[in-house]
Amino acid sequence: MSKELRIGLIGYGFMGRTHSNGYKRVGDFFPDLAYRPVLQTICGRTEENAKAFADQWGYASYETDWRKVIARDDIDAVDICTPNDSHAEIAIAAAEAGKMILCEKPLARTTEEGQPMVDAVEKAGVANTVWYNYRRVPAVTLAKALIDEGRLGRIFHYRANFLQDWTINADLPQGGAALWRLDVKAAGSGVTGDLLAHCIDTAMWLNGGIADVSAMTETFVKQRMHNLTGKVEEVGIDDACAFHCHFDNGSLGLFESTRYARGHKALYTLEINGEHASIRWDLHDLNRLEYFDHRDDSVVRGWRSVHITDGDMPYMDKWWVPGLCIGYEHTFVHQVADFLAAVEKGEPCRPTFRDALETGKVCDAVLASARERAWKDTGVDWQA
Amino acid sequence: MSKELRIGLIGYGFMGRTHSNGYKRVGDFFPDLAYRPVLQTICGRTEENAKAFADQWGYASYETDWRKVIARDDIDAVDICTPNDSHAEIAIAAAEAGKMILCEKPLARTTEEGQPMVDAVEKAGVANTVWYNYRRVPAVTLAKALIDEGRLGRIFHYRANFLQDWTINADLPQGGAALWRLDVKAAGSGVTGDLLAHCIDTAMWLNGGIADVSAMTETFVKQRMHNLTGKVEEVGIDDACAFHCHFDNGSLGLFESTRYARGHKALYTLEINGEHASIRWDLHDLNRLEYFDHRDDSVVRGWRSVHITDGDMPYMDKWWVPGLCIGYEHTFVHQVADFLAAVEKGEPCRPTFRDALETGKVCDAVLASARERAWKDTGVDWQA
Amino acid sequence: MSKELRIGLIGYGFMGRTHSNGYKRVGDFFPDLAYRPVLQTICGRTEENAKAFADQWGYASYETDWRKVIARDDIDAVDICTPNDSHAEIAIAAAEAGKMILCEKPLARTTEEGQPMVDAVEKAGVANTVWYNYRRVPAVTLAKALIDEGRLGRIFHYRANFLQDWTINADLPQGGAALWRLDVKAAGSGVTGDLLAHCIDTAMWLNGGIADVSAMTETFVKQRMHNLTGKVEEVGIDDACAFHCHFDNGSLGLFESTRYARGHKALYTLEINGEHASIRWDLHDLNRLEYFDHRDDSVVRGWRSVHITDGDMPYMDKWWVPGLCIGYEHTFVHQVADFLAAVEKGEPCRPTFRDALETGKVCDAVLASARERAWKDTGVDWQA
Amino acid sequence: MSKELRIGLIGYGFMGRTHSNGYKRVGDFFPDLAYRPVLQTICGRTEENAKAFADQWGYASYETDWRKVIARDDIDAVDICTPNDSHAEIAIAAAEAGKMILCEKPLARTTEEGQPMVDAVEKAGVANTVWYNYRRVPAVTLAKALIDEGRLGRIFHYRANFLQDWTINADLPQGGAALWRLDVKAAGSGVTGDLLAHCIDTAMWLNGGIADVSAMTETFVKQRMHNLTGKVEEVGIDDACAFHCHFDNGSLGLFESTRYARGHKALYTLEINGEHASIRWDLHDLNRLEYFDHRDDSVVRGWRSVHITDGDMPYMDKWWVPGLCIGYEHTFVHQVADFLAAVEKGEPCRPTFRDALETGKVCDAVLASARERAWKDTGVDWQA
Repeated sequence: MSKELRIGLIGYGFMGRTHSNGYKRVGDFFPDLAYRPVLQTICGRTEENAKAFADQWGYASYETDWRKVIARDDIDAVDICTPNDSHAEIAIAAAEAGKMILCEKPLARTTEEGQPMVDAVEKAGVANTVWYNYRRVPAVTLAKALIDEGRLGRIFHYRANFLQDWTINADLPQGGAALWRLDVKAAGSGVTGDLLAHCIDTAMWLNGGIADVSAMTETFVKQRMHNLTGKVEEVGIDDACAFHCHFDNGSLGLFESTRYARGHKALYTLEINGEHASIRWDLHDLNRLEYFDHRDDSVVRGWRSVHITDGDMPYMDKWWVPGLCIGYEHTFVHQVADFLAAVEKGEPCRPTFRDALETGKVCDAVLASARERAWKDTGVDWQA
Repeated sequence: MSKELRIGLIGYGFMGRTHSNGYKRVGDFFPDLAYRPVLQTICGRTEENAKAFADQWGYASYETDWRKVIARDDIDAVDICTPNDSHAEIAIAAAEAGKMILCEKPLARTTEEGQPMVDAVEKAGVANTVWYNYRRVPAVTLAKALIDEGRLGRIFHYRANFLQDWTINADLPQGGAALWRLDVKAAGSGVTGDLLAHCIDTAMWLNGGIADVSAMTETFVKQRMHNLTGKVEEVGIDDACAFHCHFDNGSLGLFESTRYARGHKALYTLEINGEHASIRWDLHDLNRLEYFDHRDDSVVRGWRSVHITDGDMPYMDKWWVPGLCIGYEHTFVHQVADFLAAVEKGEPCRPTFRDALETGKVCDAVLASARERAWKDTGVDWQA
Repeated sequence: MSKELRIGLIGYGFMGRTHSNGYKRVGDFFPDLAYRPVLQTICGRTEENAKAFADQWGYASYETDWRKVIARDDIDAVDICTPNDSHAEIAIAAAEAGKMILCEKPLARTTEEGQPMVDAVEKAGVANTVWYNYRRVPAVTLAKALIDEGRLGRIFHYRANFLQDWTINADLPQGGAALWRLDVKAAGSGVTGDLLAHCIDTAMWLNGGIADVSAMTETFVKQRMHNLTGKVEEVGIDDACAFHCHFDNGSLGLFESTRYARGHKALYTLEINGEHASIRWDLHDLNRLEYFDHRDDSVVRGWRSVHITDGDMPYMDKWWVPGLCIGYEHTFVHQVADFLAAVEKGEPCRPTFRDALETGKVCDAVLASARERAWKDTGVDWQA
Repeated sequence: MSKELRIGLIGYGFMGRTHSNGYKRVGDFFPDLAYRPVLQTICGRTEENAKAFADQWGYASYETDWRKVIARDDIDAVDICTPNDSHAEIAIAAAEAGKMILCEKPLARTTEEGQPMVDAVEKAGVANTVWYNYRRVPAVTLAKALIDEGRLGRIFHYRANFLQDWTINADLPQGGAALWRLDVKAAGSGVTGDLLAHCIDTAMWLNGGIADVSAMTETFVKQRMHNLTGKVEEVGIDDACAFHCHFDNGSLGLFESTRYARGHKALYTLEINGEHASIRWDLHDLNRLEYFDHRDDSVVRGWRSVHITDGDMPYMDKWWVPGLCIGYEHTFVHQVADFLAAVEKGEPCRPTFRDALETGKVCDAVLASARERAWKDTGVDWQA
């Protein structure tokens, strides 16, 4: 019989839903885990919303003050889904209370803010993970395995984009509720922390540390009405960001993110070019991995579109049958499963807070490089 | 507060899992429904398996005799996920017991077998539906809306394929457990009832009744070891089937299905060509609908790859945000949601048993046409 | 120094241009051929047009009566680009005059009409070929090589489409000049002889003879103004045609063609599914061949998109460098090159008149099957 | 009757072939031009090769000293297809001799070397053009028209890649014949002048001047055997180069080129994101333009794959019929046609030497930025 792992979820926005779904699905599809999540409480500042969320998703209770969640004895793990500016305070308190912590990405708004979070979880010795969920798209997980097997050989190039188009309208306000991502105080940065952080996490996982960066950012719409003040205010976030970089392994990186790429909703793409083989992936068609192997017979050599649905693909023995797609939400189920397995084994569930701090260092260097129009060392010490 | 609708699931194979997942997810994503499914019991012949399934999925009980499920007062709806040869007996008994019925497709092995099922549910006046789930892929549901709006104009062509490759190996046995689909006694037919039935259901839904057919079938591997007898026996199913046909609206249809198309796992594709516009869809990339409109400016006229993830697409306001994919299993969640909404309104949930019987008539005509090498009228009376 | 092979071209329409271009380009790109084509004369009924064509393309002379071309001593080869109803008369006369013959496809309107053409060239012993040019798309030529190497193993399925949309407009007239393809008297049939004939030629070349067929045809627009009579007349051609068939090797074939598939201009696609591997090709992206090999490692197994531009691909050492596309017209250059090489070696240049007659037999059987709503044997005796 | 424009071609490598083909084809497909090119002479240092080229392509004579070509009275235009290090000397001499000049790209190895070339042609008042041929891919030409019509609205992003993989093998030597592109003395730079120069020319044509750049270059293989010295020597070229930049119109640019992207042969891709619409194009599938328009109805809004083959597309009325592809070589035919038309009208044929000099300024700034690890202003003054 599996043991309970009682969750206290803080925040009920988009990520509150994806995490809740992860907790509720994991037992149906990963029946052999020693732990099973229990939806113990959900916390949100607006009581009416918290209660409604608890009812809809089946949480046993709700709270309106996150400190109470941490104070409760019947909570084993705290899941932080609040805007970025509150991650540090909650996480440090939770660590001090001995709770396991699952924190939404990015870890914090800055390295300065994130370092004490790492210190706190490591001092407390509590299980911790950050929801860089795209590692757990089966196609991306497979890419990692192919690289680790050495199939690509020496790596020359890594490139990643994360393109969206949802803030082109200049009438869109900033701040509050669903729009805190446009408010630099709440978010810390724009596309860099929101989207490039994903790209950087995946990149370092697949290709090792990023040593230095040269970046450019832009804010296309300079002022927007602020929902919290009711006034038109300066926009402090980066609407778009591009950078090139060197990886520790000598390969070159090229990254770009924007919310002004008309026609793209969540086009996270990555490509790795190695001496022998190359890999491409695209979030809009997440069940496919494209693979090119120069060692193929030349007359039948080409990019292979691998439909990642067979049972011998990562995680896919848990789902359906060959040819049948899974979707975005499954990445969170996978992360929950891996987290529970890690707790069982007493191992870290990567990316940990420490891993996410390194990703944050790259983000900081990117923003500094753009500000100062100069190359910046990242200071990253990436642990494979 | 929503009302309980207590489910008795019969069969715990692949479809038992997809349906169970549908029942468990629907409340999280469709919170406004008046009814909520309750996993009351699961029935399977092997007690150990039935119990394990109940444990994994959270059914409140299990049974090993389907008659007991039907006899229970605490069951509102019976869900039939058994092999095709038992659909009729179970469904008729369930109808006579006044249960709602959700039956896996195809309705029955033949029209002869299916007709009493329709009679039974109609006589009993019980809610009934058949799990032709692909109608509820959002892209396919959108296709229906576009056609009903008249965007395509007069229809000239409808073509659909369902291509797989999982039975090429001649050493694969037939019969029993996961392989009953190769046993003509259990399945009634091969790809015709298994795969083409899906294509036909979607086709008639989108394009109206099929009047007559001319078909060809083939059994590439003539003999296979039979799991139930332990002997090598004749293979009675069709490994492949192709037919052309006339729709009632004067358009031409072309259908093909096989389990011998190396490289395709579940490649259900459909295309409709109209006077003004055309539509294509493909299960391997189910989040996309391709659309061509001749009324576009000629210099920018081309097939549009519409990524069906925005909130104004069918069902998609229930899920995530633009750009984020859903998968195969969501079609069952949608059908559960629509079934519950139909029960609430006292309306039929299409496709009903009657609809599925018409699909069966086409299948029968196809098999007869192939056998007799002659065109066959289907006798279909399709109700839009 | 290469020897002259003096061409007399009869017809100056679309095909007159593609062939002329073939003759003019071949020496630049295939410099090692023993023969070089010389544009000796062009023949067309309208003097003004014939003269203009001669001027534009650099023909040394022009004629207005094809009999004069055949009578000329300075003509080695006659190229027939006229509408289908005149192929037989011209070809037989040319053969009797001892000319080599290159004839546009289809060979003739019917087998009955084509047989004497075959008899004539074989009796005369003159070099002959029919312009089924798609065999010489490098990707298709490569497909032939892959099949001949046995890479696909036993073949289960062959399917081909040729979809266009240019006659949907009911105001389009029939007959005369560019529209003779809609006039049954000139063309013999509609899409069957025009488009399916291409598909059938490729199919039998790649997969062997077609034994029997079951077909359906449709004429969507029943009457059109006739350009030659000025009156609205019955449309005698097939606007659309679909058939399924058995190949001699036991595989199943499925073919479809139409001029009413909105959104497709010249979408000739073919796919072959074998025991071990499958192949797909598409004229709209003619530089690519898609290839799936089940013997690949399962984790990197997928359809390969092979960009057929490297020098080790068929014909491609003659053109540019890897990655750079060629187009439609190159197929005619290739056929000219192969014809000249065949003349040099005294070998047939396939497809010969005899090959094309077999293709015509399938077309005839298809039309008869559709007319009589019955399976028809083709009587084909295909020579590999 | 058209007038002769007698060509003296200097260099008989890959570009000598593409240009020769352009001259030979143009009259067949653009019959209304006032001028027709005459292949008067071909010049190469090795007599045997020059003679063979003249024979193959039909040049009336050959030379082995380019000065003789310029000295000849029967040459109207000099076409420079030699390695980059000789462009300046030949072009200046040709201008001084009053010849029209068609020069392969890049104009020169550096701005310093290119400026006197511009001065010379402008002083002499001779027609001049540089073979940035990708402007004349019909899909790219169409992109220009769509942008000029204002369909995209304000531009936010421009990104372009040119990815190859042909120099990964460390055993490949540098220098001489086909490998002068790896020799920094002959080429001036690596991918920057060879590939990015194409991307920059197209980009400024479509989106206006590039103001400043921040770049990174890499030489992956540091030493290669030199064909001209027989010794292993330092590699002086850039194997890979990436840069980001600001356009004068405020949009952001991102460019990358490499010869180490395994799996790509000549993958020149470009994408432009505007306020209302976006455009994508890819040289590997050059007959397609992808177009997204946000003003489409949301339910059928998606990237349109426009197959650029209809007669109302740029240049396409000269070729075949809808659906039938053209290839790489046609871009040179188009440039010849446009050059001849410009000569007739007395107008410049863009890109002129002056235009190409501006492109060279960006290349210089890119290389300087990479060397100095700093942003560089380009000094470009782009004329629309």
